Amino acid sequence: MKRIALLGSTGSIGQNTLNVIRAFPGQFKVVALAAGNNLEELKRQVDEWHPSWVCLAQKPSVEKILPALPSSVKALAGEQGMIEIVQRKEVDLVVFATTGTWGVAPLLEAIKAKKQIALANKESLVMAGRVVTEAAKENGVRMIPVDSEHSAIFQILNGQNLKELHRIFLTCSGGPLLGVTREQLKEVTLEQALKHPRWKMGKKITIDSSTLMNKGLEIIEAKWLFGVTPDQIQVVIHPEAVVHSMVEFMDGSLMAQMGVTDMKGPIQYALGYPHRLPATTERLNLVEVGQLSFSSPDLERFPCLRIAYEVARAGDSDSTVMNGANDTVVEAFLKEQIRWSEIPELIETVLSRHRHLENPGLSQILELDRWAREEAIRLIGQRSKAWVS
Amino acid sequence: MKRIALLGSTGSIGQNTLNVIRAFPGQFKVVALAAGNNLEELKRQVDEWHPSWVCLAQKPSVEKILPALPSSVKALAGEQGMIEIVQRKEVDLVVFATTGTWGVAPLLEAIKAKKQIALANKESLVMAGRVVTEAAKENGVRMIPVDSEHSAIFQILNGQNLKELHRIFLTCSGGPLLGVTREQLKEVTLEQALKHPRWKMGKKITIDSSTLMNKGLEIIEAKWLFGVTPDQIQVVIHPEAVVHSMVEFMDGSLMAQMGVTDMKGPIQYALGYPHRLPATTERLNLVEVGQLSFSSPDLERFPCLRIAYEVARAGDSDSTVMNGANDTVVEAFLKEQIRWSEIPELIETVLSRHRHLENPGLSQILELDRWAREEAIRLIGQRSKAWVS
Repeated sequence: MKRIALLGSTGSIGQNTLNVIRAFPGQFKVVALAAGNNLEELKRQVDEWHPSWVCLAQKPSVEKILPALPSSVKALAGEQGMIEIVQRKEVDLVVFATTGTWGVAPLLEAIKAKKQIALANKESLVMAGRVVTEAAKENGVRMIPVDSEHSAIFQILNGQNLKELHRIFLTCSGGPLLGVTREQLKEVTLEQALKHPRWKMGKKITIDSSTLMNKGLEIIEAKWLFGVTPDQIQVVIHPEAVVHSMVEFMDGSLMAQMGVTDMKGPIQYALGYPHRLPATTERLNLVEVGQLSFSSPDLERFPCLRIAYEVARAGDSDSTVMNGANDTVVEAFLKEQIRWSEIPELIETVLSRHRHLENPGLSQILELDRWAREEAIRLIGQRSKAWVS
Repeated sequence: MKRIALLGSTGSIGQNTLNVIRAFPGQFKVVALAAGNNLEELKRQVDEWHPSWVCLAQKPSVEKILPALPSSVKALAGEQGMIEIVQRKEVDLVVFATTGTWGVAPLLEAIKAKKQIALANKESLVMAGRVVTEAAKENGVRMIPVDSEHSAIFQILNGQNLKELHRIFLTCSGGPLLGVTREQLKEVTLEQALKHPRWKMGKKITIDSSTLMNKGLEIIEAKWLFGVTPDQIQVVIHPEAVVHSMVEFMDGSLMAQMGVTDMKGPIQYALGYPHRLPATTERLNLVEVGQLSFSSPDLERFPCLRIAYEVARAGDSDSTVMNGANDTVVEAFLKEQIRWSEIPELIETVLSRHRHLENPGLSQILELDRWAREEAIRLIGQRSKAWVS
């Protein structure tokens, strides 16, 4: 029985993780749950799963939920709480399903504690890819990606010789705004940007999909997870979203992993690894799908992808800054403080103001992240004022 | 340096094998060549590759070519000649690229001699699958398939847990007559049936592609190579022929292997195994291909596929008889002695007249094969007479 700590339990990936666990009674035990602000859902989860630990992002939330918890549950708060959880000997596998940059320090501690890791939080690798992957290598820990694209690549490479890899094709559904013209993109509403045609996901990642920044973050994630250069990673638009990604080997052989568009697939693979578990999703019927199409992304309409490629090549601090800036401007867009078309503009401005730093350590990374967020907030404030006047 | 015996050197696979070997000087040495009747091409090959042995199907051909050969080359004849070659300690890898049923006995001897085996001749497995795969298992020999479909499956399964396999999808371009109506199929000419839209191959296999019997033979080949039941094998029509085949695992994860439609890909994989060699073909550009389509085969228009499924389920002697009958009636069609639509009819009649035999040994298999061919010839003779009268 694998004992699981689920960090980010009330989000989309967190809830799907529990759906998968529910399908395999006796195989997994949920020993810890960590969440942000959704106290009601967390309470419901505690009643169902009887974890030994819960952790909330903020101390006041802990005080709010505490009276409703059974006395057997220990309640913790913040990053320090998550760190305590991932270090417990009662935990075998940690699922990192937190959103944003919440979780780099706990991830590093889980690696040092040599836990199995299912990684759904791509921001940790974008923010601190070098630090995290070096720690994983040192501790002999293999991180199993939960992103459908990276799970696909991981599944393909499993058992293959990594030295024979030629390049990676990250498929991209195109997001909610694939067919929208350049003119129309100027007037995109929040509602439009939140309507993903294929994947049901959280709000932040859905906006990242609409700008293609999500694919940009995935380029950086893939760079670290699979030890390839950005130029070995190609993005292919594939609206049907059934090919989850592809790997081309040196001899021209191209391998693709496919499946229905349901996150339960990659989650289940990461939980069960190194074994596969019986399907909990429908099976893909290619004859029913009928046609699969492939095209190149339009970097002019979707500048975030171009920015991410440049950042992936520049590496290190650029990547941390881009991630912090993106997090902040997406949040502002979700609050309708800025226009959709301003997202890439603001990120590029923040990037242009930072001084490149090679091999930053964790404290420098956290400092860079804080700076990028503050800089983005400052810029957003100026823009909002400009609108008002 | 791998020392190679190439059986069937003047055919399409044989010549492509030499093209691949030519691209990797110093990595392979051709020590033996075996051919059928194309003496001129064999002579040219001897001049280029300087093998130690050549083998021709018929004794008289040996006498014809002998004066033209350097004295360092030993000339052999028939199946016995091939057996002598595969047993030589100077041979590391044997490529079976003979057509039809030529080669079951040499294949068994190569297995007993524990040679590496690249298997392009699917008929050996259709004719004598149980005997061959049992021998391979006993001798710890892994046969690397050269058919693009089976190479795809082999590449996908490499490194995966076979117990987690759910089913196999054999892709099928649909052959030269994919879009032809049932009415038109009655009047198909030899020329039409020989025009394959995607693959450049020998005449026998191109006709098998036109009837979909080629896919039927591949079902039986896959059954033996991968230890699956016929009901775990599904045929999918995929006219672009870039997905070479797919494997679905128990968790619903579907893996596909793709590449350009060039037999050099699978040949090179089999020669290099367990290592991949740099590409000698163009690389597949999916964006240029644009769309991939998938549909179900029409068993009414292409009854050979239905027959092959039934035979795959019945197993053993049925498979031997179907193969011998198919070989014979396709030859008759190539000589324009019968119509295209008579191919399945004649095969089914031969099958209906044989008595099912479980686990036949090699001599019984050879006897069944001979009987099926004679029976097919007899039936063809009767039909021709009926036409004349």
